[in-house]
Amino acid sequence: MKDIFISDLATFEEGRVFDGFFLVLSKQQRTTKNNKPYLNLMLGDKTGQLEARIWDPADPRIAKEFEKGAIVKLRGSCSRFDERLQMKVEQLRIVHAGEVEKSDLLPATGYDVNDLWRQLGQFIEGMSNPDLKALLKAILADPGIAEAYREAPAARQLHHAWLGGLLEHVVSLLRLGDRVAAHYPLLDRDLLLTGVILHDIGKIRELSWEIGFDYTVEGTLLGHIQMGVELVEKAIAGLPQFPPRLRTLVLHLILSHHGKLEFGSPKLPMIPEALALNFIDDLDAKMQAVISEFEKSDREGKGPDELTGRVWSLDNRQLLNTRRWLGQTGNRQ
Amino acid sequence: MKDIFISDLATFEEGRVFDGFFLVLSKQQRTTKNNKPYLNLMLGDKTGQLEARIWDPADPRIAKEFEKGAIVKLRGSCSRFDERLQMKVEQLRIVHAGEVEKSDLLPATGYDVNDLWRQLGQFIEGMSNPDLKALLKAILADPGIAEAYREAPAARQLHHAWLGGLLEHVVSLLRLGDRVAAHYPLLDRDLLLTGVILHDIGKIRELSWEIGFDYTVEGTLLGHIQMGVELVEKAIAGLPQFPPRLRTLVLHLILSHHGKLEFGSPKLPMIPEALALNFIDDLDAKMQAVISEFEKSDREGKGPDELTGRVWSLDNRQLLNTRRWLGQTGNRQ
Amino acid sequence: MKDIFISDLATFEEGRVFDGFFLVLSKQQRTTKNNKPYLNLMLGDKTGQLEARIWDPADPRIAKEFEKGAIVKLRGSCSRFDERLQMKVEQLRIVHAGEVEKSDLLPATGYDVNDLWRQLGQFIEGMSNPDLKALLKAILADPGIAEAYREAPAARQLHHAWLGGLLEHVVSLLRLGDRVAAHYPLLDRDLLLTGVILHDIGKIRELSWEIGFDYTVEGTLLGHIQMGVELVEKAIAGLPQFPPRLRTLVLHLILSHHGKLEFGSPKLPMIPEALALNFIDDLDAKMQAVISEFEKSDREGKGPDELTGRVWSLDNRQLLNTRRWLGQTGNRQ
Amino acid sequence: MKDIFISDLATFEEGRVFDGFFLVLSKQQRTTKNNKPYLNLMLGDKTGQLEARIWDPADPRIAKEFEKGAIVKLRGSCSRFDERLQMKVEQLRIVHAGEVEKSDLLPATGYDVNDLWRQLGQFIEGMSNPDLKALLKAILADPGIAEAYREAPAARQLHHAWLGGLLEHVVSLLRLGDRVAAHYPLLDRDLLLTGVILHDIGKIRELSWEIGFDYTVEGTLLGHIQMGVELVEKAIAGLPQFPPRLRTLVLHLILSHHGKLEFGSPKLPMIPEALALNFIDDLDAKMQAVISEFEKSDREGKGPDELTGRVWSLDNRQLLNTRRWLGQTGNRQ
Amino acid sequence: MKDIFISDLATFEEGRVFDGFFLVLSKQQRTTKNNKPYLNLMLGDKTGQLEARIWDPADPRIAKEFEKGAIVKLRGSCSRFDERLQMKVEQLRIVHAGEVEKSDLLPATGYDVNDLWRQLGQFIEGMSNPDLKALLKAILADPGIAEAYREAPAARQLHHAWLGGLLEHVVSLLRLGDRVAAHYPLLDRDLLLTGVILHDIGKIRELSWEIGFDYTVEGTLLGHIQMGVELVEKAIAGLPQFPPRLRTLVLHLILSHHGKLEFGSPKLPMIPEALALNFIDDLDAKMQAVISEFEKSDREGKGPDELTGRVWSLDNRQLLNTRRWLGQTGNRQ
Amino acid sequence: MKDIFISDLATFEEGRVFDGFFLVLSKQQRTTKNNKPYLNLMLGDKTGQLEARIWDPADPRIAKEFEKGAIVKLRGSCSRFDERLQMKVEQLRIVHAGEVEKSDLLPATGYDVNDLWRQLGQFIEGMSNPDLKALLKAILADPGIAEAYREAPAARQLHHAWLGGLLEHVVSLLRLGDRVAAHYPLLDRDLLLTGVILHDIGKIRELSWEIGFDYTVEGTLLGHIQMGVELVEKAIAGLPQFPPRLRTLVLHLILSHHGKLEFGSPKLPMIPEALALNFIDDLDAKMQAVISEFEKSDREGKGPDELTGRVWSLDNRQLLNTRRWLGQTGNRQ
Repeated sequence: MKDIFISDLATFEEGRVFDGFFLVLSKQQRTTKNNKPYLNLMLGDKTGQLEARIWDPADPRIAKEFEKGAIVKLRGSCSRFDERLQMKVEQLRIVHAGEVEKSDLLPATGYDVNDLWRQLGQFIEGMSNPDLKALLKAILADPGIAEAYREAPAARQLHHAWLGGLLEHVVSLLRLGDRVAAHYPLLDRDLLLTGVILHDIGKIRELSWEIGFDYTVEGTLLGHIQMGVELVEKAIAGLPQFPPRLRTLVLHLILSHHGKLEFGSPKLPMIPEALALNFIDDLDAKMQAVISEFEKSDREGKGPDELTGRVWSLDNRQLLNTRRWLGQTGNRQ
Repeated sequence: MKDIFISDLATFEEGRVFDGFFLVLSKQQRTTKNNKPYLNLMLGDKTGQLEARIWDPADPRIAKEFEKGAIVKLRGSCSRFDERLQMKVEQLRIVHAGEVEKSDLLPATGYDVNDLWRQLGQFIEGMSNPDLKALLKAILADPGIAEAYREAPAARQLHHAWLGGLLEHVVSLLRLGDRVAAHYPLLDRDLLLTGVILHDIGKIRELSWEIGFDYTVEGTLLGHIQMGVELVEKAIAGLPQFPPRLRTLVLHLILSHHGKLEFGSPKLPMIPEALALNFIDDLDAKMQAVISEFEKSDREGKGPDELTGRVWSLDNRQLLNTRRWLGQTGNRQ
Repeated sequence: MKDIFISDLATFEEGRVFDGFFLVLSKQQRTTKNNKPYLNLMLGDKTGQLEARIWDPADPRIAKEFEKGAIVKLRGSCSRFDERLQMKVEQLRIVHAGEVEKSDLLPATGYDVNDLWRQLGQFIEGMSNPDLKALLKAILADPGIAEAYREAPAARQLHHAWLGGLLEHVVSLLRLGDRVAAHYPLLDRDLLLTGVILHDIGKIRELSWEIGFDYTVEGTLLGHIQMGVELVEKAIAGLPQFPPRLRTLVLHLILSHHGKLEFGSPKLPMIPEALALNFIDDLDAKMQAVISEFEKSDREGKGPDELTGRVWSLDNRQLLNTRRWLGQTGNRQ
Repeated sequence: MKDIFISDLATFEEGRVFDGFFLVLSKQQRTTKNNKPYLNLMLGDKTGQLEARIWDPADPRIAKEFEKGAIVKLRGSCSRFDERLQMKVEQLRIVHAGEVEKSDLLPATGYDVNDLWRQLGQFIEGMSNPDLKALLKAILADPGIAEAYREAPAARQLHHAWLGGLLEHVVSLLRLGDRVAAHYPLLDRDLLLTGVILHDIGKIRELSWEIGFDYTVEGTLLGHIQMGVELVEKAIAGLPQFPPRLRTLVLHLILSHHGKLEFGSPKLPMIPEALALNFIDDLDAKMQAVISEFEKSDREGKGPDELTGRVWSLDNRQLLNTRRWLGQTGNRQ
Repeated sequence: MKDIFISDLATFEEGRVFDGFFLVLSKQQRTTKNNKPYLNLMLGDKTGQLEARIWDPADPRIAKEFEKGAIVKLRGSCSRFDERLQMKVEQLRIVHAGEVEKSDLLPATGYDVNDLWRQLGQFIEGMSNPDLKALLKAILADPGIAEAYREAPAARQLHHAWLGGLLEHVVSLLRLGDRVAAHYPLLDRDLLLTGVILHDIGKIRELSWEIGFDYTVEGTLLGHIQMGVELVEKAIAGLPQFPPRLRTLVLHLILSHHGKLEFGSPKLPMIPEALALNFIDDLDAKMQAVISEFEKSDREGKGPDELTGRVWSLDNRQLLNTRRWLGQTGNRQ
Repeated sequence: MKDIFISDLATFEEGRVFDGFFLVLSKQQRTTKNNKPYLNLMLGDKTGQLEARIWDPADPRIAKEFEKGAIVKLRGSCSRFDERLQMKVEQLRIVHAGEVEKSDLLPATGYDVNDLWRQLGQFIEGMSNPDLKALLKAILADPGIAEAYREAPAARQLHHAWLGGLLEHVVSLLRLGDRVAAHYPLLDRDLLLTGVILHDIGKIRELSWEIGFDYTVEGTLLGHIQMGVELVEKAIAGLPQFPPRLRTLVLHLILSHHGKLEFGSPKLPMIPEALALNFIDDLDAKMQAVISEFEKSDREGKGPDELTGRVWSLDNRQLLNTRRWLGQTGNRQ
């Protein structure tokens, strides 16, 4: 069982020896100035990444056959260079099956995935449009899709970039979309929520999340919008009663959900539900980015009067944590 | 009492004589090809605008002294040129006080302003932050501000461009903001709703709505963002206990609510509440633009399979009315 | 048989009476200044459009029941207002079946469609990649697709906006692509030519060309890129041996052929063939726009020292006809 | 008294021991590869910044209690790594009051501040518009404002980023504006010069210049444009005779002086004086950037045939020093 | 001698018969609704343009042989349609040589061209750099260049679009440049003023100003920047002592004076003089545009509280005339 | 004779001693942490660049007098830091004349320059337009131009950045242009090919290629477009029969060949040949960039399933090598 996480190490005194389970994200052979060869590793777990060095690869306590993607148990200690931690590895072995949970090795949602999945199911059950309901049930009844939908991150880096992130993002959007649909009678609630559930479904094919998060080659060439459309087209093909116009609208929701051509949507939102979907998707991604940024500032020990660093996904702006600056306890959150 | 509106005239047969009350939006002296002088008027009421001609200005049945801004009673009939209606005026007199409601002469909200005002008050009453509550009450207790806040349009042309439009937009945003704040615990609800109530308050100075809707010279040079900030600064100056940091945040909400520098906000949203305010403000404006566009298509007699015209405020895209295209009755709306 | 075309009328003396077959593109009821009702028509044939007026709709020589989309025979004469021709209609009747060729009523390619089709087939026959060959044959063996592919314009307005324009554009691109592939050994010729043949195939669904050229509602919401991808995906689904990686590349060629996100491609070209396809497609469209613009200047009687008008599809630049300016006879062309 | 400056060190031979007074800009605890802890400091004085290391923090000759912002006296020597200087500190103590001038520790204008201040006063005295004169005198009579106005840098990094930079920039602009107003009779000279004096006054609140130059939190959220407008509004509120229209124009000058929305001005310049103010402000900032860049190239020992590095504030262009390239002595400058 | 100008006609009562000399800018054959042919002319003089109609071209009092570019004497009267004046021509004859000044027929500078030319010469005489002085004298000693330089407008439409406009703009810039060079010792005054004199010299080839103002074909294909560079290169080729580096700088000033690539300069300003030239050129053009716009508003009878129309060359902004709004007499101007 | 190249070193085992000839691209004096002075060199040959250190500059086996630009023979060995190779130099001497080919020291075209030059000549011989033929022959008959044209790289970094790259790029474009001209009869083949040969000729002045590839100061200030135009203008001045209109077109081809103002062309392509030239120039540059990128991935040992790194000159996109991904041997290439 994994009990020491990369995020814990910042508080360890230098030189303290510890044991830990990590995922090997990369492995490179290198040489010191004095021509001594050593191994440089990038390790990961669900809380972050850590550089590590094996100064004596020939040491019998260092396993020889491990590669990128391996799960290993390490013994060693950390030191700090220019604010960056680095581990010195003294022992290394491949882990036995069952020694460690995969969910401890990649960042994962803080929510209970089963609970999120149940909420998703309830939203579908609560729909009154029989065609949309049938479509969603057919898609999520496919075991391969369901498993991937529960595991996939919502993005490689930007927001909800953790296992279960897609599902977490969708459930948040379902609840937000429900509120927005209640506010605007113009909106067809079932259509909007269908768009929420399906808009990013192509990410289960676009991304891989075995060794860190990355794009598949097919995902890079086709993109999750096209991959999602294809997946939904196939599901509709299996529902002969599905109204053709409704099909066009569902596909349009997926195609247009990025809101702008330059963000990779080949069509602008042209129906009210597509307009609303683009807004709530964008708002939820940005609110999550804000929350992550505040958490990062907390971890870095920034005071309440300090702004965050510049946030790339928010036009490089800095952010201020309202509650902390006002001196509120923030316990409402 | 006004009983014939410009929007009614489209269905009149040509040549049918009618009487009507209108606001004179402009008045110009012109000459026919045969050098006959005539008067060209632009008339308005709450449903639209109408061109009118007085072919015999010397006729004793035509009042002589009326100018732009006058309210007149006219008798005449309409004909159509290239799909555009034009009125031929036979009689014209200035109206007596009380003959016609000002609210019939300019487009106005379809909601009951007193009811909207009451809802606004309830949102303020329901706040728990005593400083924000005191600020909002102080501002809206000023009779000049209150009257203008109830009357002002939210824009000259783009969205909610009618009397009471500002209040209608704000109340819609309060209800939407309430829902969004409930969804994101990170958000300080009272601060967000304060931003909603104050973000466009400068429009009561930027715009004039006596004769059509237009910008004041001061409004053109300073803008409603600056005018709103100034108005709020003055109110806070009257509240010596108001926390300086809270003051900065309230002003930041107003300054940043357009969301981008190129939209005239001198600052990007840098606190969560400002980010959320920008999103819901933009969404509400766009949803109202969609609704208005669908109503316009209905008035123009477009069928359910026809897209709207290109919408300038939505990047020139066309829109499709989901419900009508799907053949739904739309009675839910 | 149609013998008088709209482009001929510019040279007719005013008042000369003629008979002609035209397509009714629109029909509107209007009224003169003296309240006399009349009909305003927009007529079209393959050479252009012409406004027409029926001053006495009740005249027994005017057929009563004709609508937008009808093919009619008209008698009347033309006059000119501000350089714009207008027809005065004296007689009108619906045409009998077979009286006129549909190809005379909409602009059509100047090439022999059967010959273009044969060339397309030869390019496919000449391919050495069996999978791509099988795919293309399967698609074009579908009679509905083949018929539409032979008829479709390549665009609504910009370039090759005439019946058969898609096929004409594709055959030009095949010959150009063949030359370019021969120049760059890096390019997989068969893959490039497959991209040429399929890149715009979605236009057979995106556009309608019964009454003028327009977008279908589905085409507006989904776009020809998505519609083309779907069509090709279905064809590949019927070819179980088709290599999955080749499938990804073919779809990528379609998705990326506009070359930039802001032109509606959800992906940038990422393989050499996609890069080349985007270039030759763009070059061919622009060269055709240049040719059309020079023809228009010729029709307008511009001299060799005059530049064309500003060309919207070429960044509003003006063009100069090299050969004419140099005083060459241009007979090489 | 400070007699050794950071800019002098480049010419010291390596290892030469010296004493110097510096401002501690930052202080960090670090560890060597061998786990030996050391202190890393960033030191500053008016001529630049210098990295320093204390290898033995426990040495009794090293004072223990000093933090970011402290003024210290150091003894040590410099070495050079990859062209970057680094100081090895052997002794360190906190300075006594009066040992060193604050103006030696932060970069400061090369001009005599009292002289600049006198010039500013003369420009105000020379105005003929009594209202503007009264306004400017009222503002600069406030001791807090006057002191800050004399000290503030004009920017954090881009141009005139030194103590007194704001005043230096304003006086340069007054003299330039005087020349430009004399050239264009259309311009109201007093209004233009008032704009010059007030356009950046908000920087005295937006920036802090105690420990290096930085933005205050309020400055980041509100910006110097808004802060300047507020300051001027308050001053005008104390002048009951001030004409309301003149007030609007003065505020407009401040609001619009960045010239473009995307540069943070919520309004474009709409009066001739605002247009001229934006031009001369921009020209002066850019000319100063050019001068600074040439000085930097000189310090780096570049020859007359070498262009400067790419200048970020000038669209990354490189610059050529005309006089040096032509081989002129440049003594006119 | 021309005594009635187009700008005078606005105040004539309709139907008043007058005689006038005008330049024929265009001539078109047209037909009335009743198939009556007539001639439509566009007339111009230095104060504007006027549409005119000859209803009876066969009338013996109407000269038969006149074309675009002819100078004619007309008798007739004006009427007004939708605020637009139109002349009805009763008599027309070609003018005799010497009857009218060419300078009355095209808009021309309000300054004395000989005086402007003298000022230009004085600036050259006052230079101390012998090479630049020799170059400028050599260029302006060419009679063809000198004559064109004195006549050319500075632009076709945007600013100084009148005969002598180039010279007027250059002399204004020389005086402004002189002031700016005096302010910045960094600037090489002679080099800056040489840039002023030569920056737009290519316009004497790019534009034609015989019949209205237009681009030559060569001007459209090459542009005044290239044409100016070529002209200066030729002149320098005739001065064997001219230093090669100075030549590069002079050409760079011409190439870069538009300041941005997207404005047609193939190089950004990279020397201080080029930076300053771009600024003062842009400022002078914009100040002249402001003046022209205020004059236009005056002619249109706008009140002091009215903003101008949107100004295309100033990003579509509206302008306010400071002095008039403040109620100043403006006699200083 | 040079037999060891920088690209070979990657496969050497660390510490293996070798001798090699290199060009000194830069030379800097530095100091170790222990204050020991050493020399840091950047070495280059036609296959790349290599950092080198001389730890004991006083060693008698190290020549003292060599500077940037020298060709030297070195003895030493390599080690690797963070994937970057570094050479430790033990001996160094200046090479004797004739010991090494200059073409081995800078990257050079893989084609036979004499053969490329012969092909260029054949294209010129094959032209039928006598004026263009005479112009091209006159230009390339100048020995200085011819030599430079054979040697010049086509760019400093982006594409064909090697000796002979300009000629290689031009010959590729001639063959491609020949194909494209054959496809579009509208194009004047001789004019297009003339544009191909002359479009980048200014690069022989803009760039220097003695010590690495760099811009000359004149090249930076004027650019190769202007320098090419000037060179061609001079050549035409020597051909009195050259038709002026043809001259304008040739110059326009050079001026406009970048296709957009923001890419440094002061004019957009306005003739068909200029449009085509811009397309094929851009296509050839991009195809070469793709080829170079694939070669780089091969050198880096990337597998067939890995995309290239982000390519700066292609909008930071990644690329996929079609053939390798499909598992083809690629022997066709």
